[in-house]
Amino acid sequence: MEPIKKFFTRDKFAEHVGIELLAVSEGYARAALDIKPYHLNAVGIVHGAAIFSLADLVFAVASNSHGTVAVAVNASISFLKATSSGRLFAEASEVSRNAKLASYTIRITNEQEQLIATFQGMVYRKKDKIV
Amino acid sequence: MEPIKKFFTRDKFAEHVGIELLAVSEGYARAALDIKPYHLNAVGIVHGAAIFSLADLVFAVASNSHGTVAVAVNASISFLKATSSGRLFAEASEVSRNAKLASYTIRITNEQEQLIATFQGMVYRKKDKIV
Amino acid sequence: MEPIKKFFTRDKFAEHVGIELLAVSEGYARAALDIKPYHLNAVGIVHGAAIFSLADLVFAVASNSHGTVAVAVNASISFLKATSSGRLFAEASEVSRNAKLASYTIRITNEQEQLIATFQGMVYRKKDKIV
Amino acid sequence: MEPIKKFFTRDKFAEHVGIELLAVSEGYARAALDIKPYHLNAVGIVHGAAIFSLADLVFAVASNSHGTVAVAVNASISFLKATSSGRLFAEASEVSRNAKLASYTIRITNEQEQLIATFQGMVYRKKDKIV
Repeated sequence: MEPIKKFFTRDKFAEHVGIELLAVSEGYARAALDIKPYHLNAVGIVHGAAIFSLADLVFAVASNSHGTVAVAVNASISFLKATSSGRLFAEASEVSRNAKLASYTIRITNEQEQLIATFQGMVYRKKDKIV
Repeated sequence: MEPIKKFFTRDKFAEHVGIELLAVSEGYARAALDIKPYHLNAVGIVHGAAIFSLADLVFAVASNSHGTVAVAVNASISFLKATSSGRLFAEASEVSRNAKLASYTIRITNEQEQLIATFQGMVYRKKDKIV
Repeated sequence: MEPIKKFFTRDKFAEHVGIELLAVSEGYARAALDIKPYHLNAVGIVHGAAIFSLADLVFAVASNSHGTVAVAVNASISFLKATSSGRLFAEASEVSRNAKLASYTIRITNEQEQLIATFQGMVYRKKDKIV
Repeated sequence: MEPIKKFFTRDKFAEHVGIELLAVSEGYARAALDIKPYHLNAVGIVHGAAIFSLADLVFAVASNSHGTVAVAVNASISFLKATSSGRLFAEASEVSRNAKLASYTIRITNEQEQLIATFQGMVYRKKDKIV
């Protein structure tokens, strides 16, 4: 999994948002985000787009973990609980995969293991190898 | 619409991502994003989460434009065309609204007015006024 | 468009639900459903799954209208207004299309042209021709 | 759970589609569908809308299982595997619930316990009791 991890160090947006990749295996990824003031929205809670960004990284890593390029086709997110401080975690698991398409479920939790949001994503799988 | 615009200057995440709010009216908002290196993903195209962030701001502004607080319940995004430079625009329009719930469609386009992504979002409408 | 219309006369579930295909052109379809007692749910309003079925037919027809087989990958529906009698219409329009994937928006309306639901769908496009 | 089961015997569309409710408990429901010729689409596989209908019933039952009326706000479905005969099952579990909103995940499987589709749904919870 080292080539995959190294590949994702090039993800400039994930870096800009402050996301930390914790673990990768085939069809799986886990990441964390320490909530900072710049993650908050106008009412002082963690921005939905910051939560989406965290979920999207593990979606990308898990779907590219088989060694070929996967591109996101669509994604949906449900926001279940507001939060404003501490550390958030996202964990992706693979729901289905064939030669062309694969789908993933991502759970976003806080340090108390409460569910903050759920995310579903689908990718189109290309033939190109990840180098 | 000035109180709404002013309210959203407090959105720290939108500021961190570099989103510029262009226009607001009842049930409507438009914003732009100048693509910078930090918006790119590991393969050098604009990150899905950066596009989501742009769409999410106009979703939030349009749904809060009636003067009471609206919180996002869920959102889905379809990624239609890859892009890596220039300026992106997002425009929200209100699809439906009752006392409790409202839904919005957001179109994300590039400078050539090509459709980059579409976004659907639903909010729960609280009684609290936006000050 | 006659071969497409003829092809969809084989759709047994659409027939079972009572859906009537009204119009087809490239990337477009329109259908109607006359509400009958068997379309209602436990509280006496039109069942969400009946509305989904109507939307799904125009999604299928529009996405297969280019003459090659398209299979649904995912779909989402938002329920905006309850209804219990009369005639419903669904109209599909193509949002994007490339060699592999295409996406569609479907509006479901009543006879007063009020929006009852909105539906988004994505298909994977095969090489097989529709005969 | 008997009042809930009895309540759903009034669901005329579920009956029309041939769905059989198997089990109900708080936040949970399970149902089955024996595939008949009228469930097939134009290419002879089970219609996406038939699968949606099966999933939608357990979504409705699980979300109404707390004894107050819940109405569907939106739902999304991903189609993972085609099928054309045998028996399908849908199982709903509650992902989150507060006074106003609740969300559910539904897994649709075949007799070999292969995943056919996944479904996510959100409801708005009313104060009205189910009688």
